[in-house]
Amino acid sequence: MTNKSPLAPASFPSLMPIAGVRLGATSAGIRYEGRDDVMMAEFPEGTTVGGVFTQSQTASAPVEWCRVALDNGFARGLVVNSGNSLAFTGREGRKTVKQAVATAAKLIGCRQKEVFTASTGVIGEAFPASVLINALPGLHKSITGGGWKAAAEAIRTTDTFPKGAVRVAQIDGNNYVINGIAKGSGMIAPDMATMLSFLFTDAAIPSDVLQKLVTKAAAQSFNCVTVDSDTSTSDTVLMFATGQGPAHKSIRRIGDPRLKDFCEKLNDIMLDLAHQLVRDGEGASKFVSVIVTGAASAKAARRIGFSIANSPLVKTAIAGEDPNWGRIVMAVGKAGEKANRDKLKIRFGEQLVASKGAADPGYDEATAARYMKGQEIDIAVDVGVGNGRATVWTCDLTHEYVTINADYRS
Amino acid sequence: MTNKSPLAPASFPSLMPIAGVRLGATSAGIRYEGRDDVMMAEFPEGTTVGGVFTQSQTASAPVEWCRVALDNGFARGLVVNSGNSLAFTGREGRKTVKQAVATAAKLIGCRQKEVFTASTGVIGEAFPASVLINALPGLHKSITGGGWKAAAEAIRTTDTFPKGAVRVAQIDGNNYVINGIAKGSGMIAPDMATMLSFLFTDAAIPSDVLQKLVTKAAAQSFNCVTVDSDTSTSDTVLMFATGQGPAHKSIRRIGDPRLKDFCEKLNDIMLDLAHQLVRDGEGASKFVSVIVTGAASAKAARRIGFSIANSPLVKTAIAGEDPNWGRIVMAVGKAGEKANRDKLKIRFGEQLVASKGAADPGYDEATAARYMKGQEIDIAVDVGVGNGRATVWTCDLTHEYVTINADYRS
Repeated sequence: MTNKSPLAPASFPSLMPIAGVRLGATSAGIRYEGRDDVMMAEFPEGTTVGGVFTQSQTASAPVEWCRVALDNGFARGLVVNSGNSLAFTGREGRKTVKQAVATAAKLIGCRQKEVFTASTGVIGEAFPASVLINALPGLHKSITGGGWKAAAEAIRTTDTFPKGAVRVAQIDGNNYVINGIAKGSGMIAPDMATMLSFLFTDAAIPSDVLQKLVTKAAAQSFNCVTVDSDTSTSDTVLMFATGQGPAHKSIRRIGDPRLKDFCEKLNDIMLDLAHQLVRDGEGASKFVSVIVTGAASAKAARRIGFSIANSPLVKTAIAGEDPNWGRIVMAVGKAGEKANRDKLKIRFGEQLVASKGAADPGYDEATAARYMKGQEIDIAVDVGVGNGRATVWTCDLTHEYVTINADYRS
Repeated sequence: MTNKSPLAPASFPSLMPIAGVRLGATSAGIRYEGRDDVMMAEFPEGTTVGGVFTQSQTASAPVEWCRVALDNGFARGLVVNSGNSLAFTGREGRKTVKQAVATAAKLIGCRQKEVFTASTGVIGEAFPASVLINALPGLHKSITGGGWKAAAEAIRTTDTFPKGAVRVAQIDGNNYVINGIAKGSGMIAPDMATMLSFLFTDAAIPSDVLQKLVTKAAAQSFNCVTVDSDTSTSDTVLMFATGQGPAHKSIRRIGDPRLKDFCEKLNDIMLDLAHQLVRDGEGASKFVSVIVTGAASAKAARRIGFSIANSPLVKTAIAGEDPNWGRIVMAVGKAGEKANRDKLKIRFGEQLVASKGAADPGYDEATAARYMKGQEIDIAVDVGVGNGRATVWTCDLTHEYVTINADYRS
């Protein structure tokens, strides 16, 4: 077990009860010893669900199941295990998912299509379905309204801290809770570092509206972070809305002005959780915000941002606390998007380091080097061709990253 | 200075004289102490030239110069310096290039458009043109037909060994020499690790045909290797044909059957040099061939190959000698190209590790682990959708890579 990330928040936040949601965790012994590795949640009838999944062409068996179940629009249960992703496990893996779903549906008393599932851990090694299934009856008996932290702990793999966040949003003057938990030590790393996040609210949001809300918020949060540019076979974001909070007039469309605060809070909680993933990025010692402006479009700005945020040379320079802005120039140049070399501006924090196709006359390397010693690094780049803008977040690439990924499985 | 790469060839090959080519190197003191940092070559009248350059949007001043000069199709001189890339140095950098070209043209007695130039080293720090220019007259006096190794040494930056190769090709039953030198510790790394390569022959190839030959050979060699997915602002491949070898009937088109052997040898020498770049990849301890078959097209196969070859998780697993084939599945899945998960086959060397959407029944982890301890690793992937194939080459991602790139400039 690696030490807690230096970028971790001081403590796990106090999540609030959400009317209708009961959850908990237990140890099934799938891979880890002495810790919980399965979580289960139950929702009341009428709970709606929305979700987004990995774009991978080699998606895992649980992701395949959820994609189909999501069409149904309603959820009564969620089962998540860590230690094994059930990805690339062929017929065996699909069977395990089917049996786990069937068992949970029987315990809850619902249709199988109303049970959602996710798995994270090693790829390509099937495990006996019985290990998971035998743990579910005891777990189901133990679930309560307060199992948030236990659930966040149970879904961890190489995560060095459990991830949670809470927001309160208003609809029609009433308060609704949004809770979220997540795991991932990297948005995007396949073996033990899949990104999973589950969100819960007591507001009443129809599933088609919920689906749009989740897609939009994920695009601005989870899809704007990168640790190492690798994409998991199992990435999953699911949101459940019980509708058991104070009654509000029914909502029919995402553009409803009464959803404004809820939208904002949902975007905010997802961004909080996404940032926690970066803060727990494997081996991370710096939290890096890459702010791109002046691009041909928002999409172009995003690509340039990711070109910087995924560049091993930029990330190792940051790890070395080296204000090596030449590598930023390189990463802008290779992004495949229009950039005007002779108008390019680069800032580290407040300091203008490059402008007009060369080092800025006011650039002082000692000042920049001092800035790079901080834990939070802002890199702002204006590429000088248009009005497109985007921000993406990443961490540095350290010796510890190599240690974690070169050494852990063997 | 880091130690010589464990993957380096035993010695620098014996390059042969090429009728009409004289070259040499000297120490101008641009950045390094106690070693040569400028090379110069002179060619006879009528020497044709072809070349390809970085796709970067922030290309260096020397690249800009060469792109324009190439239109001319003829070359009389080549000046290359290491220690400073003259990239992102604004007006200052362009002035240095202009003055160096003018000085070399005067020494050779040719038009400025016939002088080609390349620079590699730190980005964004201009240096006085005089440092380079003052070194040229003495250097020009010293050039000889045997300066190959000195030239290969002078263009190095973080390279741990000089890179050269030689082939003999037949046209009309006569022998023609092709010599090549290269530098780069990574195809693709911006600061001290730009990729440069210069090729020379005594065959008589018109510049339009030469341009096509070089473009084609580079696509199959330099453009198929990756160390860290970063693209330099200065990548340059130039080939010079003096036409001073034995007379052969004139060649008008790339499809001329008399060029067959020459084409093959040119492809082969470029691949040799490209592999040398990978063998000197920063921190490399393994040479990795990624062979992709069964893709929808050759282009799709190439993208899948690079998705594997650029994946930090695949590369760290190889560094750790871990046969972690789940990460290959991940990298195939994220490539954005069609793949049939349930037909996917993965081989490490001769061993089939995965087939039909799961670990192969005959897979033996101990055998695979033994294979990963070798220095040359073949990863073959059949994605099961078509006939597209491609091979790309890379190295592993080690602690040493982080050390070199996190620590060297500060």
